[in-house]
Amino acid sequence: MKLISGGVCAAKGYKANGIHCGIRKNHSKKDLALIVSDVPASAASVYTTNLVKGAPLTVTKTNISDGIAQAVICNSGNANTCNYNGIEIAEGMCGLVAEHTGICARNVVVASTGVIGQVLDLTPIENGMEELTAGLSYDGSENAAMAIMTTDTIKKEVAVEFTVGGNVCRMGGIAKGSGMIHPNMATMLVFITTDCAISPAMLQKALSSDIANTFNMLSVDGDTSTNDMVTVLANGLAGNEEITAEGEDFNTFMEALNTLTIHLCRMIAGDGEGATKLLECIATGADTEEAAKISAKSVICSSLFKAAMFGADANWGRVLCAIGYSGADVDVSKIGVSFRSPKGEIEVCRNGAGVPFSEEKAKEILLEKEIDILISLGDGEYGATAWGCDLTYDYVKINGDYRT
Amino acid sequence: MKLISGGVCAAKGYKANGIHCGIRKNHSKKDLALIVSDVPASAASVYTTNLVKGAPLTVTKTNISDGIAQAVICNSGNANTCNYNGIEIAEGMCGLVAEHTGICARNVVVASTGVIGQVLDLTPIENGMEELTAGLSYDGSENAAMAIMTTDTIKKEVAVEFTVGGNVCRMGGIAKGSGMIHPNMATMLVFITTDCAISPAMLQKALSSDIANTFNMLSVDGDTSTNDMVTVLANGLAGNEEITAEGEDFNTFMEALNTLTIHLCRMIAGDGEGATKLLECIATGADTEEAAKISAKSVICSSLFKAAMFGADANWGRVLCAIGYSGADVDVSKIGVSFRSPKGEIEVCRNGAGVPFSEEKAKEILLEKEIDILISLGDGEYGATAWGCDLTYDYVKINGDYRT
Repeated sequence: MKLISGGVCAAKGYKANGIHCGIRKNHSKKDLALIVSDVPASAASVYTTNLVKGAPLTVTKTNISDGIAQAVICNSGNANTCNYNGIEIAEGMCGLVAEHTGICARNVVVASTGVIGQVLDLTPIENGMEELTAGLSYDGSENAAMAIMTTDTIKKEVAVEFTVGGNVCRMGGIAKGSGMIHPNMATMLVFITTDCAISPAMLQKALSSDIANTFNMLSVDGDTSTNDMVTVLANGLAGNEEITAEGEDFNTFMEALNTLTIHLCRMIAGDGEGATKLLECIATGADTEEAAKISAKSVICSSLFKAAMFGADANWGRVLCAIGYSGADVDVSKIGVSFRSPKGEIEVCRNGAGVPFSEEKAKEILLEKEIDILISLGDGEYGATAWGCDLTYDYVKINGDYRT
Repeated sequence: MKLISGGVCAAKGYKANGIHCGIRKNHSKKDLALIVSDVPASAASVYTTNLVKGAPLTVTKTNISDGIAQAVICNSGNANTCNYNGIEIAEGMCGLVAEHTGICARNVVVASTGVIGQVLDLTPIENGMEELTAGLSYDGSENAAMAIMTTDTIKKEVAVEFTVGGNVCRMGGIAKGSGMIHPNMATMLVFITTDCAISPAMLQKALSSDIANTFNMLSVDGDTSTNDMVTVLANGLAGNEEITAEGEDFNTFMEALNTLTIHLCRMIAGDGEGATKLLECIATGADTEEAAKISAKSVICSSLFKAAMFGADANWGRVLCAIGYSGADVDVSKIGVSFRSPKGEIEVCRNGAGVPFSEEKAKEILLEKEIDILISLGDGEYGATAWGCDLTYDYVKINGDYRT
């Protein structure tokens, strides 16, 4: 399993592009992305569980109900959600892709991200399609990654290389996500492409299983988005024998997918709105996987703990407090807590009570950019990891006046 | 039902005091409160559901298991939670009250609030007891209210007068609470006294029923405290016939209690850590009470919506988003949203989609200090109200380095 460059174009047969078409007022920000596979691909997708759902999700769900897709179109600057004509506009975007690429409109995945509740005008997209399709290229991942950003400060691309049945396969992905991130059975916008041959059913199985331990263990601000979606396309151009059942090849595929999604999770958490630190909470010793997951996620969701991390304050009482109200069935008198970063590791709590520690050393550890919070529950063999970020002045600033 | 002054000393036969004894380093901040009834009183209490529980809660639970109490002692500056000797210290505090007042130690309610995970030294409390008890007075509510404050910026006192069976009764309360507020079957620290005669069982029934619609509908930051507690003492000195069953008198008592607790909820939410605005979310038209409660609470818990309110930004999409992920079973296409303040009321969403509105007028309404968010669900007859506050730079500042 090797990390490589190329993002969503790392695998064979995928072109991408991203342009500014005019949905966003700022001309220096791209706002329309397109990813196209040379041939139809197996497709799998997971969606937000928010009852308020973006119109593009409804259209995508219909379009890939046969397990096949060939293109992804996505705009930023407007979520096309909670308006009267969202379905019509989302279908219009698929129609424009068909018109300009020859791909069947029913094989198009459509997504939107941005402000909720405003009508999305199709005109700038219509006007931009020629530039968008003319610029499609086998190294266009970066442009696409930039065009789906909203409050993100860094583009999010990653790719891996792996071998299935002697064939070298590649898988790459791009993501956007910075605020309104608290996935629940689904996630923010992530588009993944691979040239590995895999059936639509096994692809959906791999994706649904993967997100339970990756994107669903991520939170920036506790708000589950209306437009969350992860889509994987697998076009089979690597030439391996198609994966149609569980087994060694499927496990390798899962490992590749997991490597990729964990990378994207860390990138999203570290680039959370206003964040100065990536927090990784690793729970061990739980008597069920559920208890480990609930505990770890509760810690990285606590506003109080997140603010303490911003201040590099080793306030471990807030870690215990968050585990205590999480709903996980744990024995408080067995809980241990340590903080870890490139500057070292420090134990701050054992058996549910404080242990003497150097505040100076703790500060040094917590002033780093990536902090691990290690929780031992002392109850069993299960573990889980959750990702989040600190709560900062800039989160408030960014969200105090997002629309204008 | 008349609002009166006097706080926790408004009812007959209650003395109170609050002093600085040295638990907090800042000499200008009081840190020890005592409330004493002239005679033993019916007592009822509710506690946090956090598995991590402050030692004082355990001791109080034992002490009032017979439904009788006569005094409340409470310190700020240290939560006496997650340390090795918390029970011993909490019992020591009750013992000191007994020693200096002659009240049986088993009739003392004990509470602590402040930093979690540090040992609470009994010495300053011991040294302060003489000053604390000597200063007890029938108008000492304000001192007690000030001594239980932590990051609170205003003291929280309220009292009401009502009539039961021809007898004038009074009920008063003090509260502390600003951060780590997201009650769940319990709440922050609230001490309520009344001279109304009521049996312990009916008092507990009244309290448990009341909090479901008051303190449990309040959130500042989503963090359920380890030391939450509401205690009511009822000493019977008003001379009414003791309330021992449901009926008109019990309903009057409930109304008094509800008036009092809603006032305290509003005071706590409006003084949330860093808050500049009190948010009151009123959901109507739900098909169950549960759906109304879940929807209203989800809105006032959303970090994104809270930040938008700080910025006076009428970002109603975040209201819909929060209802959508709340878990409430609602029909999104029927939801309506309006914002209201002393400057007027403005409709921003109807049938799940935006309606044209004046951004200027919305800004004017949202720049006020108290904002109502009106949600109509269009599904039925049930309603609920939740209280919260905006998310501000100061919340981050206060919690970035709370311990030092």
